[in-house]
Amino acid sequence: MGGGMLTELATEILIPAAAAVGIGFAAVQWLLVSRVRLSPERAGAAGGSKNGRDDYLPIEEEEEGLNDHNVVLKCAEIQSAISEGATSFLFTEYQYVGIFMVAFAVLIFLFLGSVEGFSTKSQPCTYSKDKYCKPALANAIFSTVSFLLGAITSVVSGFLGMKIATYANARTTLEARKGVGKAFITAFRSGAVMGFLLAANGLLVLYIAINLFKLYYGDDWEGLFESITGYGLGGSSMALFGRVGGGIYTKAADVGADLVGKVERNIPEDDPRNPAVIADNVGDNVGDIAGMGSDLFGSYAESSCAALVVASISSFGVDHDLTAMLYPLLISSVGIIVCLITTLFATDLFEIKSVKEIEPALKRQLIISTALMTVGIALVSWLALPYKFTIFNFGAQKKVTNWQLFFCVAIGLWAGLVIGFVTEYFTSNAYSPVQDVADSCRTGAATNVIFGLALGYKSVIIPIFAIAVSIFVSFSLAAMYGIAVAALGMLSTIATGLAIDAYGPISDNAGGIAEMAGMSHRIRERTDALDAAGNTAAAIGKGFAIGSAALVSLALFGAFVSRAQISTVDVLTPKVFIGLIVGAMLPYWFSAMTMKSVGSAALKMVEEVRRQFNSIPGLIEGTAKPDYATCVKISTDASIKEMIPPGALVMLTPLIVGTFFGVETLSGVLAGSLVSGVQIAISASNTGGAWDNAKKYIEAGASEHARSLGPKGSDPHKAAVIGDTIGDPLKDTSGPSLNILIKLMAVESLVFAPFFAAHGGLLFKIF
Amino acid sequence: MGGGMLTELATEILIPAAAAVGIGFAAVQWLLVSRVRLSPERAGAAGGSKNGRDDYLPIEEEEEGLNDHNVVLKCAEIQSAISEGATSFLFTEYQYVGIFMVAFAVLIFLFLGSVEGFSTKSQPCTYSKDKYCKPALANAIFSTVSFLLGAITSVVSGFLGMKIATYANARTTLEARKGVGKAFITAFRSGAVMGFLLAANGLLVLYIAINLFKLYYGDDWEGLFESITGYGLGGSSMALFGRVGGGIYTKAADVGADLVGKVERNIPEDDPRNPAVIADNVGDNVGDIAGMGSDLFGSYAESSCAALVVASISSFGVDHDLTAMLYPLLISSVGIIVCLITTLFATDLFEIKSVKEIEPALKRQLIISTALMTVGIALVSWLALPYKFTIFNFGAQKKVTNWQLFFCVAIGLWAGLVIGFVTEYFTSNAYSPVQDVADSCRTGAATNVIFGLALGYKSVIIPIFAIAVSIFVSFSLAAMYGIAVAALGMLSTIATGLAIDAYGPISDNAGGIAEMAGMSHRIRERTDALDAAGNTAAAIGKGFAIGSAALVSLALFGAFVSRAQISTVDVLTPKVFIGLIVGAMLPYWFSAMTMKSVGSAALKMVEEVRRQFNSIPGLIEGTAKPDYATCVKISTDASIKEMIPPGALVMLTPLIVGTFFGVETLSGVLAGSLVSGVQIAISASNTGGAWDNAKKYIEAGASEHARSLGPKGSDPHKAAVIGDTIGDPLKDTSGPSLNILIKLMAVESLVFAPFFAAHGGLLFKIF
Repeated sequence: MGGGMLTELATEILIPAAAAVGIGFAAVQWLLVSRVRLSPERAGAAGGSKNGRDDYLPIEEEEEGLNDHNVVLKCAEIQSAISEGATSFLFTEYQYVGIFMVAFAVLIFLFLGSVEGFSTKSQPCTYSKDKYCKPALANAIFSTVSFLLGAITSVVSGFLGMKIATYANARTTLEARKGVGKAFITAFRSGAVMGFLLAANGLLVLYIAINLFKLYYGDDWEGLFESITGYGLGGSSMALFGRVGGGIYTKAADVGADLVGKVERNIPEDDPRNPAVIADNVGDNVGDIAGMGSDLFGSYAESSCAALVVASISSFGVDHDLTAMLYPLLISSVGIIVCLITTLFATDLFEIKSVKEIEPALKRQLIISTALMTVGIALVSWLALPYKFTIFNFGAQKKVTNWQLFFCVAIGLWAGLVIGFVTEYFTSNAYSPVQDVADSCRTGAATNVIFGLALGYKSVIIPIFAIAVSIFVSFSLAAMYGIAVAALGMLSTIATGLAIDAYGPISDNAGGIAEMAGMSHRIRERTDALDAAGNTAAAIGKGFAIGSAALVSLALFGAFVSRAQISTVDVLTPKVFIGLIVGAMLPYWFSAMTMKSVGSAALKMVEEVRRQFNSIPGLIEGTAKPDYATCVKISTDASIKEMIPPGALVMLTPLIVGTFFGVETLSGVLAGSLVSGVQIAISASNTGGAWDNAKKYIEAGASEHARSLGPKGSDPHKAAVIGDTIGDPLKDTSGPSLNILIKLMAVESLVFAPFFAAHGGLLFKIF
Repeated sequence: MGGGMLTELATEILIPAAAAVGIGFAAVQWLLVSRVRLSPERAGAAGGSKNGRDDYLPIEEEEEGLNDHNVVLKCAEIQSAISEGATSFLFTEYQYVGIFMVAFAVLIFLFLGSVEGFSTKSQPCTYSKDKYCKPALANAIFSTVSFLLGAITSVVSGFLGMKIATYANARTTLEARKGVGKAFITAFRSGAVMGFLLAANGLLVLYIAINLFKLYYGDDWEGLFESITGYGLGGSSMALFGRVGGGIYTKAADVGADLVGKVERNIPEDDPRNPAVIADNVGDNVGDIAGMGSDLFGSYAESSCAALVVASISSFGVDHDLTAMLYPLLISSVGIIVCLITTLFATDLFEIKSVKEIEPALKRQLIISTALMTVGIALVSWLALPYKFTIFNFGAQKKVTNWQLFFCVAIGLWAGLVIGFVTEYFTSNAYSPVQDVADSCRTGAATNVIFGLALGYKSVIIPIFAIAVSIFVSFSLAAMYGIAVAALGMLSTIATGLAIDAYGPISDNAGGIAEMAGMSHRIRERTDALDAAGNTAAAIGKGFAIGSAALVSLALFGAFVSRAQISTVDVLTPKVFIGLIVGAMLPYWFSAMTMKSVGSAALKMVEEVRRQFNSIPGLIEGTAKPDYATCVKISTDASIKEMIPPGALVMLTPLIVGTFFGVETLSGVLAGSLVSGVQIAISASNTGGAWDNAKKYIEAGASEHARSLGPKGSDPHKAAVIGDTIGDPLKDTSGPSLNILIKLMAVESLVFAPFFAAHGGLLFKIF
């Protein structure tokens, strides 16, 4: 069992170096995006003329209105309104979340500290009983610190993402005047800034934390990596509030704006006369961007922590083989490099010339990154791992080779690709499923909804098989460590995934800005095409997020079970079974809360928008300005207030179940919520994506069939709008929050496992 | 461990006697219903006048059109059209299902016979290794026979139910002329005919089968009761096709009729001008009545079988204590008597005088039967059981007392009541949840759907806790036997449950007939009120069906695990976990199939109805008759064709998983589909019920709030109609079929367990 070829020093250099490269690359992309000027003088200069409209000269057919200073001014103005709204909301959100964060940090300290009665004495290690480990109090302190670290990194990730997206949206609009290819590149580059910054940031902070903690823990790696799990908990708990709060914000505004604007007043989407339009565009940035950034960062942090905590009690940890121990971080490091190369394909090697090429270009990104990453994983597995080693497997040590571990990571990676492709098939309007849904609009909204729901249910099948196969293979090869690294494999191309993901809302916003700035119909068509591809991209991103969440939660669940010292979770015991069935119910409870919240907030928004239309003279004629701020306030208040109950449900369930019912029931709850939540999350996100694109399919009218359903305002189109509106909370609020539910409960259980093992199951102890 | 007080002889007399009383009571109720004459001369006579309209004399304010011979004639005509349509569909369905039944019977024989290579030699018993039991071939033969017996009983149950319902619908309409109370009693009595006939029938056939099988098996009770499990399989597999086929039939017609009639042509529901109206009314009888009858019979048969098979290897079976052994049948016998008394409260002791009293009357039935039954269970447990005995618990024998068993049955019974009440709260338009959904129609169909879905998700919470508590208590007290008798407890008042259940579609049909016969608005109002209560009743019935299915499946699952000789189902093994996650996916796959089927069939129906409206001159003016037969044919063809894929999914999954992946993975699949399916089933059925009643709430306009949303044809009402239409396949096709999915897979696994244990897991054996 000799070590791998990579020396400890090389490892210690490689990881921060990769992170630095990632950050550098993000900076370069940002520079490139910033070349698109938002100040009219420069835009005029770029256009080659200073004289505005009179001098208008079409350089090529595609370019339109390049020299219209007013448009640029308008775009800049709208962008700053969106950016300000988003910043102000996030600050408000972070204030509330900050209070929670501090309170929960105290809770962690108290619960974990109480395990050994706040004793400062060293204690026998949990797994190597002959050695002495650091006291439980140290675990309490360091878990609290890493929780705060994770939470702050998550908040920073979300905030940076939002800043970049609001920086990029108006620039994408302006580039759309030059053609769809330029706009695509601007949106995609901005996505890449976010993707690389997040991936590199998450890796770097984790790396630094490990090295700092090691100063205290020394050789007690078991204790060190147990404390590090707090990083995952911090990351995911912020992600929960980000997703839920942001999701309610964005969908209350979106649904409210659509219901009055599109359905009642028959004005286009994103029309500046609609009072909720700014809130809607702010929502995209705080929900889809900031929320998703926190979410994927959380997944990444958790899968790394799950892998590390299992590794620390396997031969890597026992033999103190640092290179092998840091294998998860090395995978992520290689991932950054691979994604960097992949991005060059999109931005420099190929050029998008027409609307049809957008989706294939995004798909190509996925394929290239997956193919390259497979080589990268093989290299890391070969260089960093000893040929043979053992992995902790519920009390026993399982023999594993480095090639087996390669297979675990690779199968996760490829399962991700399969999930991505299936999601694309079910949500892109290039294929029959969405076209069938669009076709069902002929007979009205009811059949549209029935077909859409059926589509979402059906889209679950293959992803679940893909997840099941990955679980089976990686579980069989390398137990829970295998699952954790499979999850890491799926997330190893996170920079590209996030770039694609963020591209969606940026394009959406770009379209909104074009509409609001009164730009020509043609430009709006281009941004709409970018946006339709963005919907699919967003669905793919959600597919990744859910798939990886399933693997991550299982890995965390396994780590929890190991740490809680139980060796089997037998469904045939009443304690476990009731956990299982109640756990399977939790995603429904959670969805009920979040959907109702969106519904109620949307109703309030509708009333306000109606009030403004009725009471502000000249609004519908476009001569008076609406009161955007009140709508922003409604969304803000609703999301802050409504994010608390679902947040409490997720955060308190493991604590209550573990404390009162004990670790067996908690295991059941985790397994139940995992297997049930994954299905709802996938189906909700795909149903919503399909409805949105069915609507866009009718609006675009790119085929004979699509034209027979249109145009905008026709009965089938109205039915499609209803479906789209229903899909909003499904795909952007309840669906994506569910993957946080399942992984957050798992990581929380893992962090609190020592407490539950020591003091849990009060109710059964009493009776 | 002496026996109970009840002698063997008394038991052997009591059970068939109770069944006979049940059948007799059904006959009396039928006689009472048949007093309402459908031939005009007699109707005239009953009305006290032979001169028709000219002589019209209002005896009391409520009575209307009593003497209109034309109306009676028209009702009789419509009734016979519905009855013929239903009979002809069921015969077509049974032809196809008959082929399947024979093929599956052969499969059972071959699979089970092959366990010991069709040897006719006796073999050591599975549990008492020192004794010799009948050969596996005998199990193959008798399982096949009991499968056929169960299938035939199920078919007969469904068919009888349909016949009674179509006999009663027009009579209810006619009685509605005399007032809401009379109509209620007719509908309720007819429901009771079905309830008692089914309960008594199921009990009697099972009792006779046991006694006949005993002639061969003698003292080998283990073999005897293993073979009897085929009865449950037969019952449930027929129920599956009944629910799915009937569900697709009824909803294709209903959705198709509504989409063109109500939405496009703006004609009322059940208008005779609508070509799909007969198909719609036929559908209520083949779907809601025949399908549900088969379903609940299946649950009853399965829970009895699950209890018996566990009892046979517990001290009851080992000591050959026949009275204790037949405890499940004794519970059902007492149930029939209790329900008989309960029914008298509805039909004779109280009288319904106004619309408002209908729902409380139905609720009172539930409460009375539950209270009385608690006493009944206590009596049976005291008289029939020894004070102390042992129950088989995965290899060990657990000590149990008769009072503990009483608690198991009683908790199931009371959990059923809780589920019933929660369902009522969430689906009745007397409470805020449905009113909130109705209110959300103000802002259109989208918010209606969002609120409705959220309501369904929320309605899952308490029922799941109720089920979890019952499982925990009964599991802890008496292992898997406890769960099985808890399920029996929930089903012990099945006669009342079915009566309430069947009351719904009968009232629905009665309303349809009133509309079609051109009866006055007032009569339609009365039948509508009956129907609104019927929707709630149907939802309550579905709640019971789902709750009991959850318990039954768990009991069957436990029996399967015992029979397959595995002692733990550890979630932390890859084989089990992949089963769990794939199992949790199956309800989604199944729902996708059934919903898509309804959607496609409805589209065809819409086209046909539109075609008729456009091509038959005078149809919309009411001067020409539509072509009902073509619509009936579309529903028939669609349901026959479309029931095959979901049927195959459910029937083949256990066979494929068991054969190729083995019993561990199959256990995972069963547990996964159980915990996930229950949630979808409850939420789908409640969401659908709530939408339907939200629509009725607006239509009835019984409160200030309701009137502000109405009247019929207003925008909120249109939004409510869309919700109602979406809910149709959820509440009547996919939702109720799901509980069959979970229990059918469990009972099938149980029947095939010896084969899987002997030859299963091929794939893992090869690799």
